[in-house]
Amino acid sequence: MSDSNIMSTIEPPSELWLAKARAHLDVLTKPLGSLGRLEDLAAQLVSIRQREYAEPLRKAVYIFAADHGITAEGVSAYPSEVTRQMVLNFLANGAAINVLAKLHGVEMNVVDVGVDADFDQIDDLLHRKVRKGTRNMIQEPAMSSDELTEALGVGLDLADDSKAKGHSLVAVGEMGIGNTTAASAITSLLTRKPVELTTGKGTGLNTEALQHKRRIIEAVLQKYFGEAAGDILPDPVDVLRIVGGLEIAAMTGFILGAARHGIAVVVDGFISTAAAALAFALVPQVRGYLFAGHQSEEPGHQALLDYLELRPILALNMRLGEGTGAVLAMPILESAMCLYNQMATFESAGVSEAKD
Amino acid sequence: MSDSNIMSTIEPPSELWLAKARAHLDVLTKPLGSLGRLEDLAAQLVSIRQREYAEPLRKAVYIFAADHGITAEGVSAYPSEVTRQMVLNFLANGAAINVLAKLHGVEMNVVDVGVDADFDQIDDLLHRKVRKGTRNMIQEPAMSSDELTEALGVGLDLADDSKAKGHSLVAVGEMGIGNTTAASAITSLLTRKPVELTTGKGTGLNTEALQHKRRIIEAVLQKYFGEAAGDILPDPVDVLRIVGGLEIAAMTGFILGAARHGIAVVVDGFISTAAAALAFALVPQVRGYLFAGHQSEEPGHQALLDYLELRPILALNMRLGEGTGAVLAMPILESAMCLYNQMATFESAGVSEAKD
Repeated sequence: MSDSNIMSTIEPPSELWLAKARAHLDVLTKPLGSLGRLEDLAAQLVSIRQREYAEPLRKAVYIFAADHGITAEGVSAYPSEVTRQMVLNFLANGAAINVLAKLHGVEMNVVDVGVDADFDQIDDLLHRKVRKGTRNMIQEPAMSSDELTEALGVGLDLADDSKAKGHSLVAVGEMGIGNTTAASAITSLLTRKPVELTTGKGTGLNTEALQHKRRIIEAVLQKYFGEAAGDILPDPVDVLRIVGGLEIAAMTGFILGAARHGIAVVVDGFISTAAAALAFALVPQVRGYLFAGHQSEEPGHQALLDYLELRPILALNMRLGEGTGAVLAMPILESAMCLYNQMATFESAGVSEAKD
Repeated sequence: MSDSNIMSTIEPPSELWLAKARAHLDVLTKPLGSLGRLEDLAAQLVSIRQREYAEPLRKAVYIFAADHGITAEGVSAYPSEVTRQMVLNFLANGAAINVLAKLHGVEMNVVDVGVDADFDQIDDLLHRKVRKGTRNMIQEPAMSSDELTEALGVGLDLADDSKAKGHSLVAVGEMGIGNTTAASAITSLLTRKPVELTTGKGTGLNTEALQHKRRIIEAVLQKYFGEAAGDILPDPVDVLRIVGGLEIAAMTGFILGAARHGIAVVVDGFISTAAAALAFALVPQVRGYLFAGHQSEEPGHQALLDYLELRPILALNMRLGEGTGAVLAMPILESAMCLYNQMATFESAGVSEAKD
């Protein structure tokens, strides 16, 4: 990895602040525990932020875009040029993520880490292309070691930028035709679940095409991990390099970097959660910085949430990516933080407490 | 009821606009159906609002407060003066609903429809007191027919005011120590589910106190509905009058009035959903105007959601009332509406559609 110290520089969130937050929540004017998961979310945010009164959350979303060599095998319902087209749609404010980011006051950052297109003349795009798409993983590993290091470094650098900008809550999202194939392969390798359970229709394959996609993933796993896949857990760095994607590697680096800087991270759906699972496999302390924005319709997502022991904030049957489910959860997280900061206490409001 | 025409003046939302909305959602730049339930929410909002491009939602919450005679039987963990104290907390901006309404740009309206206290000198409170709390329903019906008519009328009037103010999305919430007892009795009568399944710990009863609460509700149902409770569905007007609450009656009227005016209504938890279920029992056409903000922890809530065939937007284990779960769902509804209005189409953005 580009920053070999990352593993030793990530501290878990503060247990002390978690306990302080719990105690504060119990004196607010509401029946004990009646805000349910909002109380857990507020306490986790306080344990990350480690301060008594926290100023409003500064929110951003980073969308990492890249193409995938494996699309040559016909694993996606959409042609791979849609990655480029959707990047242009992001820059023209026409995509779902644009609408949600604007509505909820979330700064948008679009990162080209590996789109198979030239964007040289375009402003407002973060130009960090490592390569024009990954290699076709059924023929050779998706990335070389140097490419992987560079892609992880893109994420680590952008987490530094995010820290410098003062963000306190960041969403990670992605765009990459073919990337559910990579995410399914990663999920099967990390969770030991069979391909059948980790692979879904992506953006909308029919049943026959889904069977084909599963066979391709099976063949990839067999080629590189063979019998071992069932026995020992492969090195997460190998998993990322061989079956990952440039945007997945960048998200992994970004999540590690955000955790190092004490920034709370909201993961989106299947692909970004695969990146979070890899970050967790590399550095278990990142887990306390993670929020799962929503429950995706892709079947592999549940396996990853279980692996990470994360419970999604929303469950709205979405399966779009782009960071949409993560940004949509931000008003809920913001609500939890405002309730924590602004509600009266029983004492200050003169409200009677429960009997006995 | 104060307005005997209400039943014939509520039209269901437009099927034509629902179909138009579905067609529009299918040409936006996203895989077909990938916004999941946000697409259903947007389509329902369009079918209620019936226009091509809808201006931003104007949001309000109406919180109906009242006391309950049944609290004399020891059915609540909190003393009944907490109703008055919490009304004062609402007016001092210290409660959870204040924080959420402010954060999400929702106009707050606090209505005294039956609190057992004098608020004469207080501004910012809507003074519509029918009576200082209901009668103790274990001794006599909670309300007289005149009181019920008056309480329903409070809600109908406030729905007229809401229309005049231009609200397009209203949340209904409540405050009333003892009102889960009323809601459980209503739920058992409307859904035929046993008291055991419709009665929970409210604001935090222990196991023994919960058993006592259940016995009280059983006795009330036996007293007025006896054997019939298991056979024929009682008249919803009788249910509301005998075991209801003044705030529940006002919410029922408000929901009927909002539907008549074509205003979308977000119900909150157990109590406000009981009011929605009564409104539905009286006028089935209201259902298309209803959104369930969240899934409450109170067990009877699920029975009511099933009865209304509503699926909650959020599930965050909340059990606070005040309209908090309804207001927290508003940014999700607003997100759905903005996506509908603002996203680019495949054609306008030059994005390729899926292969066959």
